[in-house]
Amino acid sequence: MKSRIKKCVANLKALSLDALVLSNRINISYLTGFREADGYLLLTCEGELIYFTNFIYEYEAKDFGAWKVVMASGNIFKKLSDTARSLHFRRIGFESKNIPYLEYSKIKQYFLANHIELCETVDFVERIRVIKEPQEVALIRKATKITEEALEFSLEIRDRLTTEKQLNIEIERFLRIKGGGTVAFPAIVAYGANSALPHHVPKEGRKLYENYYLIDLGAKYYEYCADLTRVFTWGKITPFFRRIYDIVKKAQDLSIKKIKDGVKVKDVDNAARSFIEKKGYGQFFGHGLGHGVGLEVHELPYVSSRSEEVLKEGMVITVEPAIYLKGKFGIRIEDMVLVGKNKGEVLSGNFCR
Amino acid sequence: MKSRIKKCVANLKALSLDALVLSNRINISYLTGFREADGYLLLTCEGELIYFTNFIYEYEAKDFGAWKVVMASGNIFKKLSDTARSLHFRRIGFESKNIPYLEYSKIKQYFLANHIELCETVDFVERIRVIKEPQEVALIRKATKITEEALEFSLEIRDRLTTEKQLNIEIERFLRIKGGGTVAFPAIVAYGANSALPHHVPKEGRKLYENYYLIDLGAKYYEYCADLTRVFTWGKITPFFRRIYDIVKKAQDLSIKKIKDGVKVKDVDNAARSFIEKKGYGQFFGHGLGHGVGLEVHELPYVSSRSEEVLKEGMVITVEPAIYLKGKFGIRIEDMVLVGKNKGEVLSGNFCR
Repeated sequence: MKSRIKKCVANLKALSLDALVLSNRINISYLTGFREADGYLLLTCEGELIYFTNFIYEYEAKDFGAWKVVMASGNIFKKLSDTARSLHFRRIGFESKNIPYLEYSKIKQYFLANHIELCETVDFVERIRVIKEPQEVALIRKATKITEEALEFSLEIRDRLTTEKQLNIEIERFLRIKGGGTVAFPAIVAYGANSALPHHVPKEGRKLYENYYLIDLGAKYYEYCADLTRVFTWGKITPFFRRIYDIVKKAQDLSIKKIKDGVKVKDVDNAARSFIEKKGYGQFFGHGLGHGVGLEVHELPYVSSRSEEVLKEGMVITVEPAIYLKGKFGIRIEDMVLVGKNKGEVLSGNFCR
Repeated sequence: MKSRIKKCVANLKALSLDALVLSNRINISYLTGFREADGYLLLTCEGELIYFTNFIYEYEAKDFGAWKVVMASGNIFKKLSDTARSLHFRRIGFESKNIPYLEYSKIKQYFLANHIELCETVDFVERIRVIKEPQEVALIRKATKITEEALEFSLEIRDRLTTEKQLNIEIERFLRIKGGGTVAFPAIVAYGANSALPHHVPKEGRKLYENYYLIDLGAKYYEYCADLTRVFTWGKITPFFRRIYDIVKKAQDLSIKKIKDGVKVKDVDNAARSFIEKKGYGQFFGHGLGHGVGLEVHELPYVSSRSEEVLKEGMVITVEPAIYLKGKFGIRIEDMVLVGKNKGEVLSGNFCR
């Protein structure tokens, strides 16, 4: 945690900020290890941590010990401002991607009264989180392994009588038992034509009439996420289905081959996209190729054709090309890739099915 | 839905707004019934609905049919602003409690370029949601019933070898099977001294050494939430534990008796709080007495000693006094009450244990 805070302190100094008010609990967890948060963290340019919370989390916050705790039963925004004034701060950053406007405006009002400038920052901590440390990669690997096991498990319990909702519930139970008690995101279980809806919500009465389904799921292990998608088939599938499946698979391979330190994100996106376009299905692949994964299931870098980002060693991204054919079926194949110096390592590589 | 939109239109006119940009997906769901949202809804003062979304939800949004859909693959904020300009709008409200600052500032920038004023609103739709319609009460009743069944189920499966995490996972599976596939909130299962932590997160290795536990959970049924808490005991408990339990139970009874249309929320809070204070445990009850429940598990009205709100017929609130004794144990008893003209109806009244 210390090296992470050190990086923040360096960034604060570069921006001439006296401190940062963190409202994003994921970022607070990343910098401190405190996970049960509901409060604001003031990180000073001396690397000091002051946590503002209320009665609900008082015990956990005080027992945590790695910071000074300010209890704010009444007006947390005034407490924050008065503390900053007592430290003679003049310029304090806030997390503009995360904080609701109303909270921003209240902090601003109290800061103004104390002659403190509230300065917008975007992705201040997120940009540090983008490169994973070895121990973070280890946790992502473990989350990925549990997710692969859950994919296998889904095949063991699927049955013509199973509804999307039932399969979803049992899969998430599996992920929670093997993982840290929660899941990375609500799993998508999509039968038949529902697979053509990118973020389909599993339905109560939808039974498995077909011999294929799409499943998109992720375990969470010590707060780190995984995110994999497969389309499973059995028995006889149509040549058309097979053809679309093979196009998506080949597109994914082309993108994965591009991955290494120094490559532009949009070139990785383009490898899959241009292949799918060439095959005539470009309009049916309307989202980005992937995204970073870590403490959040969707984080930097976003892998899209519009991004100017460059891949760096230690990033973990998903590669998930897709073709959605409304009313028919959708194919999305998603794997997680660790960016290395000379190539990408497919973290979900043991699960080739 | 039509009467809800009518109320919004009347409020827009009262505030001299041409439209409201909704970013809160719960509010969008309340006004339209569309649940799988990721986008912005423009509600005009003519009662028209224009939904801005992207490729991910294109199919669902277009199939929904009850609105005009604008696809915004590139800049959704510009699309929103240009649409508003084409309708000759000059003043448009936004939901300040919900929208992140960065999104607000982007919308503001494009509105400015089109000479449209972006006006802060707080709880615009939330204040309409506060009074539940009969069909909403019916769904909350059902969610409450499922939650009561889950409480019983927890007793059936609890065992000295069960960990907090295991009990939590099985309880949530039960809630999801009987409910709509999701839960109202992550259930709290707290053994022993963990019960003294108001929002304790169930722990992996924490087995049930004691003859009591606290459980706080809620089903979700057709998007409507329930929220109940019980402390279950068996075998011999200490006279001190019993005494604290009885104080909390009596405090709850005193508050529930106060509930009816026209009563101030702070008087309901005070009925429990002053009793707990009189018994010498005031400092160990540091949160409000309760909150509204509906599409969100925490919504208006917030039942606290500082509130100036007045109860109205058709509100549904929780009543959850507590005493938290750090290092020892905590007692919280939470029920859901429907505010009636002359009294409150305890929705969880069939479960007296």
